[in-house]
Amino acid sequence: MSSDVITIAIDCMGGDFGPAVTVPAALAFLRAHGAARVVLVGRSDALSPLLAQHPDVAERASVLYADEVVAMDESPTLALKNRKKSSMRLALNLVKEGAAQASVSAGNTGALMAMSRFVLKMLPEIDRPAICPVMPTMKGHVYVLDLGANVDCSAEHLLQFGIMGAMLASALDHKAAPSVGLLNIGSEEIKGNEVVKQAGERLRNSGLNFIGNIEGDGIYKGEADVVVCDGFVGNVALKVSEGVAQMLTQSLKQEFRRNLLTRLSALAALPVLKHLKARFDHRAYNGASLLGLRGVSVKSHGSADAFAFERAIARAYEAAHNHVVERISACQADLHKRQDAASAAAGERA
Amino acid sequence: MSSDVITIAIDCMGGDFGPAVTVPAALAFLRAHGAARVVLVGRSDALSPLLAQHPDVAERASVLYADEVVAMDESPTLALKNRKKSSMRLALNLVKEGAAQASVSAGNTGALMAMSRFVLKMLPEIDRPAICPVMPTMKGHVYVLDLGANVDCSAEHLLQFGIMGAMLASALDHKAAPSVGLLNIGSEEIKGNEVVKQAGERLRNSGLNFIGNIEGDGIYKGEADVVVCDGFVGNVALKVSEGVAQMLTQSLKQEFRRNLLTRLSALAALPVLKHLKARFDHRAYNGASLLGLRGVSVKSHGSADAFAFERAIARAYEAAHNHVVERISACQADLHKRQDAASAAAGERA
Repeated sequence: MSSDVITIAIDCMGGDFGPAVTVPAALAFLRAHGAARVVLVGRSDALSPLLAQHPDVAERASVLYADEVVAMDESPTLALKNRKKSSMRLALNLVKEGAAQASVSAGNTGALMAMSRFVLKMLPEIDRPAICPVMPTMKGHVYVLDLGANVDCSAEHLLQFGIMGAMLASALDHKAAPSVGLLNIGSEEIKGNEVVKQAGERLRNSGLNFIGNIEGDGIYKGEADVVVCDGFVGNVALKVSEGVAQMLTQSLKQEFRRNLLTRLSALAALPVLKHLKARFDHRAYNGASLLGLRGVSVKSHGSADAFAFERAIARAYEAAHNHVVERISACQADLHKRQDAASAAAGERA
Repeated sequence: MSSDVITIAIDCMGGDFGPAVTVPAALAFLRAHGAARVVLVGRSDALSPLLAQHPDVAERASVLYADEVVAMDESPTLALKNRKKSSMRLALNLVKEGAAQASVSAGNTGALMAMSRFVLKMLPEIDRPAICPVMPTMKGHVYVLDLGANVDCSAEHLLQFGIMGAMLASALDHKAAPSVGLLNIGSEEIKGNEVVKQAGERLRNSGLNFIGNIEGDGIYKGEADVVVCDGFVGNVALKVSEGVAQMLTQSLKQEFRRNLLTRLSALAALPVLKHLKARFDHRAYNGASLLGLRGVSVKSHGSADAFAFERAIARAYEAAHNHVVERISACQADLHKRQDAASAAAGERA
């Protein structure tokens, strides 16, 4: 399958800027991925002229007309019911039908999750879809899940997150056995709330490269390739991180603006500050994977620019090209075999 | 009562540095607080000579001999059982007996919590003690609780954290009605897990200045004076914050060390960077309050230097001077009256 052409369905109308961002990003993606194709889904009167200006890649792009757009503040339930002809929905339909291998949207997160689940369906034995972004660390990057809406998780859900995250890391980063950590409040096995303790037990017996508990600061130290937590804790961790980063960068700016002397020193420090900014450029980390589905669906940040949106498309491409869905299925099947063997052995001993 | 002399019992042996830090901090505290007294608890052969060198404040300090020290890695249960003559325990005993109005220790957190609970006892109708540190924000500072070991909390526990945090903020910052936020994953009332939703309901009817849900980044934007969460989420939030801050500051250092030019620009930027460092100097925020007890017990970071430890003593002094324990009791009593009145009104209507 990896020699097959990968086609990405792009919801061109989603996000804060619509085609002004999504189409240039798609064109840049096509230039960087010579074998890939895209289907631009949206209002063709907006998309076709943009495409026509780029004959070098236009033949690998097609346009699918979609008149409706899911609003950013629309309720997921209503969007699912009423937006059957939206660009978001039609892009997912293409994946469902096999006309595309992955879908990317910068639209309404809740609606995208609901539609992805409805159109693509869940993988058997995965209970809930998860949202898995990639975040920078001191050593590289880390996948953290869930950052979606899974707020009351069981130990089994956390185990499934571990499997899905590890398979995403193996698909995107070509790691044979990505390390998986469980977000907890101490490194000892006895730490944490009941659900987390039980999840640790399951992860230890999962066959994954489980490295045990990691604490909040371990995420950024790069202690694990994948960090597992429930959606509540994940959301708090992400937002707190953004809050600290904003506070420090804003304060640095304020300090450099304090007087003429500090403004001059800012000029001197500018190259260093630019380097630092580039190192943690959140745009490079754009593209969160919706996992647990029978197809690849990637969520871009709504305010993504063309550079960031291209990263989300490229991530969707890698996930599809490296069969993330099949990897998750196979890993789940392995786990079940392992569990069955363990039960059989326990039965024989009894 | 506020005209009475406040005496602080100081566990001089706790923490990474013992008397080398705790005694200079106590002396500096006495110089800054002309009416206060301290009892230095620890090995008198280590404490008395240090005290003798400072006759200007020595008359407001006394020494209580304690031979035992609670080790930093000792189990709280064993420390409670075996360390009845430790400096930590004797300092708490002084508060219990009324010979001191507050106790400060940089020792083993778990042991301090267990001993504080055993010696000082819980306030009636508070189920669990909480640990409440103070953290910097864009606007000033915020109290976040629980950051202790309360990992499986009920809505009632979170309500009690709200009351205790608000009363701490009112005591330390002289705010009549400190704003209380509930850490959640969205600002709408319907967001969050079941416990958090129910806690929101209780906080809305508590009579506190409850401003609703706040998200992780809202902590650092200074959206509330007090932020309530369970001990698991609080611990993750704190550690994640440390992780992000470390990653950014270490990376900034790395970028400034990249080559000769960047090293020169670092020299130019040095005053600005020093200013920034001072602004978020974690030492200034040292001193987490153990709340819910019938006395004031403050935990200093184990690695605190004299400046940081003095801040913890000063915080304990303010908490005792401004009657934080009595405030929590009164607030709980008010809440019960309110609940009784509401039940009575409901009964009459029925």
